[in-house]
Amino acid sequence: MASSLLTSSKFPLPSPFPSPKPSLFLPRPTSIHFPPPKPPSFPSFPKSLLISSSLNPNPPSPLRRPLYIPNHIPDPNYVRIFDTTLRDGEQSPGATLTSKEKLDIARQLAKLGVDIIEAGFPAASKDDFEAVKAIAKEVGNVEDENWYVPVICGLSRCNEKDIKTAWEAVKYAKWPRIHTFIATSGIHLEYKLRKSKQEVLDIARSMVRYARSLGCNDVEFSPEDAGRSDREYLYEILGEVIKAGATTLNIPDTVGITMPGEFGKLIADIKANTPGIENVVISTHCQNDLGLSTANTLAGACAGARQLEVTINGIGERAGNASLEEVVMAIKCRGEHVLGGLYTGINTKHIVMASKMVEEYTGLHVQPHKAIVGANAFAHESGIHQDGMLKHKGTYEIISPEDIGLERSNEAGIVLGKLSGRHALRDRLKELGYELDDEQLGNIFWLFKAVAEQKRVTDADLIALVSDEVFQPEVVWKLDDLQVTCGTLGLSTATVKLIDAAGVEHVACSVGTGPVDSAYKAIDLITKEPVTLLEYSMNAVTEGIDAIATTRVLVRAEKSHFSTHALTGEAVYRTFSGTGASMDIVVSSVKAYIGALNKMLGFEEQYQTKGSVEQTPVSA
Amino acid sequence: MASSLLTSSKFPLPSPFPSPKPSLFLPRPTSIHFPPPKPPSFPSFPKSLLISSSLNPNPPSPLRRPLYIPNHIPDPNYVRIFDTTLRDGEQSPGATLTSKEKLDIARQLAKLGVDIIEAGFPAASKDDFEAVKAIAKEVGNVEDENWYVPVICGLSRCNEKDIKTAWEAVKYAKWPRIHTFIATSGIHLEYKLRKSKQEVLDIARSMVRYARSLGCNDVEFSPEDAGRSDREYLYEILGEVIKAGATTLNIPDTVGITMPGEFGKLIADIKANTPGIENVVISTHCQNDLGLSTANTLAGACAGARQLEVTINGIGERAGNASLEEVVMAIKCRGEHVLGGLYTGINTKHIVMASKMVEEYTGLHVQPHKAIVGANAFAHESGIHQDGMLKHKGTYEIISPEDIGLERSNEAGIVLGKLSGRHALRDRLKELGYELDDEQLGNIFWLFKAVAEQKRVTDADLIALVSDEVFQPEVVWKLDDLQVTCGTLGLSTATVKLIDAAGVEHVACSVGTGPVDSAYKAIDLITKEPVTLLEYSMNAVTEGIDAIATTRVLVRAEKSHFSTHALTGEAVYRTFSGTGASMDIVVSSVKAYIGALNKMLGFEEQYQTKGSVEQTPVSA
Repeated sequence: MASSLLTSSKFPLPSPFPSPKPSLFLPRPTSIHFPPPKPPSFPSFPKSLLISSSLNPNPPSPLRRPLYIPNHIPDPNYVRIFDTTLRDGEQSPGATLTSKEKLDIARQLAKLGVDIIEAGFPAASKDDFEAVKAIAKEVGNVEDENWYVPVICGLSRCNEKDIKTAWEAVKYAKWPRIHTFIATSGIHLEYKLRKSKQEVLDIARSMVRYARSLGCNDVEFSPEDAGRSDREYLYEILGEVIKAGATTLNIPDTVGITMPGEFGKLIADIKANTPGIENVVISTHCQNDLGLSTANTLAGACAGARQLEVTINGIGERAGNASLEEVVMAIKCRGEHVLGGLYTGINTKHIVMASKMVEEYTGLHVQPHKAIVGANAFAHESGIHQDGMLKHKGTYEIISPEDIGLERSNEAGIVLGKLSGRHALRDRLKELGYELDDEQLGNIFWLFKAVAEQKRVTDADLIALVSDEVFQPEVVWKLDDLQVTCGTLGLSTATVKLIDAAGVEHVACSVGTGPVDSAYKAIDLITKEPVTLLEYSMNAVTEGIDAIATTRVLVRAEKSHFSTHALTGEAVYRTFSGTGASMDIVVSSVKAYIGALNKMLGFEEQYQTKGSVEQTPVSA
Repeated sequence: MASSLLTSSKFPLPSPFPSPKPSLFLPRPTSIHFPPPKPPSFPSFPKSLLISSSLNPNPPSPLRRPLYIPNHIPDPNYVRIFDTTLRDGEQSPGATLTSKEKLDIARQLAKLGVDIIEAGFPAASKDDFEAVKAIAKEVGNVEDENWYVPVICGLSRCNEKDIKTAWEAVKYAKWPRIHTFIATSGIHLEYKLRKSKQEVLDIARSMVRYARSLGCNDVEFSPEDAGRSDREYLYEILGEVIKAGATTLNIPDTVGITMPGEFGKLIADIKANTPGIENVVISTHCQNDLGLSTANTLAGACAGARQLEVTINGIGERAGNASLEEVVMAIKCRGEHVLGGLYTGINTKHIVMASKMVEEYTGLHVQPHKAIVGANAFAHESGIHQDGMLKHKGTYEIISPEDIGLERSNEAGIVLGKLSGRHALRDRLKELGYELDDEQLGNIFWLFKAVAEQKRVTDADLIALVSDEVFQPEVVWKLDDLQVTCGTLGLSTATVKLIDAAGVEHVACSVGTGPVDSAYKAIDLITKEPVTLLEYSMNAVTEGIDAIATTRVLVRAEKSHFSTHALTGEAVYRTFSGTGASMDIVVSSVKAYIGALNKMLGFEEQYQTKGSVEQTPVSA
């Protein structure tokens, strides 16, 4: 749908990119209902942030974001949030997501209200392509009551095949975007690309032009490793891609080496010296190798960047990216008074659910002292005299838990018993940040009842049950029964009974070095899927020994399931995570393993893209 | 020893603190061997950092730190690292450390070369007092070949009892320091202290004077919540405590609300407006609530702070503190070229071991994408074509793993087999960052042999074995045998045989909701120690199903083991962590539980300090 509308505004190449032409980017008749470009001054809203009154009495809570124009933001104080959890985040070792999981996360990102969802790298594999396409179709066309719908972006290297593939995936969205990149630093030109500055400049210019020629009116360009690139060369290549039709220029600190002042100056210098920069939006993309990604991102915003690339929980390769929750909450807390009036369109109440979902799906756990979303972020050592602890919440709390969608738990954390009904369960889950559909709620309710028969059900138990029910792949193999003996005497033995997709029962037994080893070996005897167990972890963050344990495993298929790495251009193995919950740790371990196998088996047949920027010179 | 030497230089109260008097602070005859206060320009050392040559060809690697003078640093570019892992870090929920563990960590901090170790809050409990005293005696008097010995610091609230207690604990060190604090922000004065500005000023001045009167020549003062304090009042109270004899002024961003530019300006303003500030060292202490602690700390250093308060892994209450490894590596990578020549005395090769030790002892795990010390910090998605991945390490790596004491692992991570000898084991452990004594190595060697009989031993297996052997409390109860049956059929049953301190065997059996529940209940029947299980987690980050699993539990004694919280002044429950490793997850779970019980039982009888600044007005 969107594509046919967009072809009518095909960009006339190669004229320089003009100053904002909203008509070019607003092909829909409904655009006349959009709020005015410059929102009026905000009325005073109920105080939603617990913050020292001397610092920020009325944090900004804009009702509406400015209308979307690819290369221009009508309100100079509005900052776009570009979430790359599904692309850069998924590139983390072991964080492979299935299409269903990506779609779930994209829906949650839309609830959060991120302006742009980078949905993946469509050229990486067939599954990546299909996931981006599904997100473009299903998330990229659902408007909320304020006419908000996220831009759906696909990454591509600077070659025609990647760009074409990205376009074929994102074009179904109302606001499709192609994000293409090429390295510009001396060290990358010399060792990775083995190309001259002029060659890289020619490729960048022609590929941005090519993306526009496909009918894509929203093209983002990134000079990879900009932080270490020659400044004059950077201005030149950026000026050229603007002329070629780029609408957003993203400045990545690819290796996370810059200091905040330095990164701010880089953005300011680019803003001051790049020809035509007033016609595009400047973006930041900061890696966290020295723990400075949030500060660098904010420094970029203060220097003029109006799109910030972030991930949920700060995940990503190596030390990850700037984390959405830190950047957004810093702007929410200090935007008005310290950051020159900056604000975002994020509905922060959905942060906790987004954080939990990404943690569950990627298997990348969040440390207890992670800012904003860590388990301890709002916890103090529990005091004996509750009244003596915090005479005023603001003495040690600058954000209220409710503000990010976290209910302030009562002391014991116990709220539901075996007589609690479906309505109480739904309410409590909603307070914990989970909004489930009726079918999901129904399934959880019966699990909840089974647990409630045996013990009091805590919040953490509920979260474990939700993870076990909601965050699960399609079922191929199902656990029916398990029996294990183990101990210090050795000779652990497990017997498992699995049911396959056709409903047939299979039984096998095996010995092993421990109960999990023997059970997994018995499963392998049945499923005959050779995998390597890469990681195994378990958590039961509930009080009491009879807690529900959640197990997480990460497996890698042997000799199959490849993907193409966006930055290095080489094929990498896919890995698959699985989770399982039970009051019996051996049972939860077995459920997690079967979950990972199901996720792997459900992963669509992939094809491996052979081309990479180094091996396949593009026809510029 | 140190105390008798120091009494000779008792400070004549209440004269204003003069400009540096090295003779006052250098009572040892050997001080004449100290290197000259201003080190010469550094010779060029072998390039130890993999960093873009255009940015930092020769990072500073000073051979020696300037001599220690409490209120003055001879080299204006030298930055002191003040580690508060044992005080602020230990205040994290669940991070309680025993005296032995604190001593181990203090020794590791001395290896790292931190300038000041904040060893604890001696007034919190008898155990805290004894731990600080032991560290002062055993770590605070061991000089290395460069005459380096860390300052040992004890925290105290602004009252005579706390200060006296702190002095009694730290005075045994060669360089003892008392760190006293009181809140100065409006919100804290009103809601926490319920005192006027003048009252707080009087308390601060008189308590610093009192600390000096005890014979302590090194007194640090912190205005708590400085980031939200009235600026003029801050200058006034800081000027008064300088006159009263404070040698370091620490400026905490207690609630982690400031932006880097803002915090830098706070430090610059204090430097510009506080009378007598040139006679003291300015320090930073940044909390991480918005993910900006590292950036704020560096901004403080750029603005003139020359002591930075940090913790290993960034642990601490809520979102923790600035992390030592991030601050130190940022200064190492960018100090010379971007941060005006700043450098520290930290030997970064001991960072990984310090990080692992703190993670094990506190039970606060580090997320995989934690900067510098996370499991993924140096990992890329494993590629199929190794040569195609990173043609030059510097393309994506700004720090080399070796630089922080991490061996670059080979692809499989498998290095030792069952024929490997003690020497090979010692070498490999050293490469992994563990330096063990002969007895520890001997114990591990036999554990290693037992595992090697059954499987190939990976690095992760070795790390698990070291944790199980080295990071363990004194034995009270010991696991002899365990036998468990469990599965989906319910009625999990466990039988345990424990041996007590006297060598007597005890056997009990119990049913439970799962194998761990039944085993823990059987243990409870024997030990009769009522505890609450707060957390339970397990990891086996090794390839292969037959990996060694490490279990960690956190328990809280019921109705015992209190401590006084430094900031809120109230009594809090102690919690105790335990770890266990085995190829059988039920066995490792049982070992972890017994470890936690042993840690609790080994914790010295505590007394609870009743006084707090609110309840016991000090006689100023």
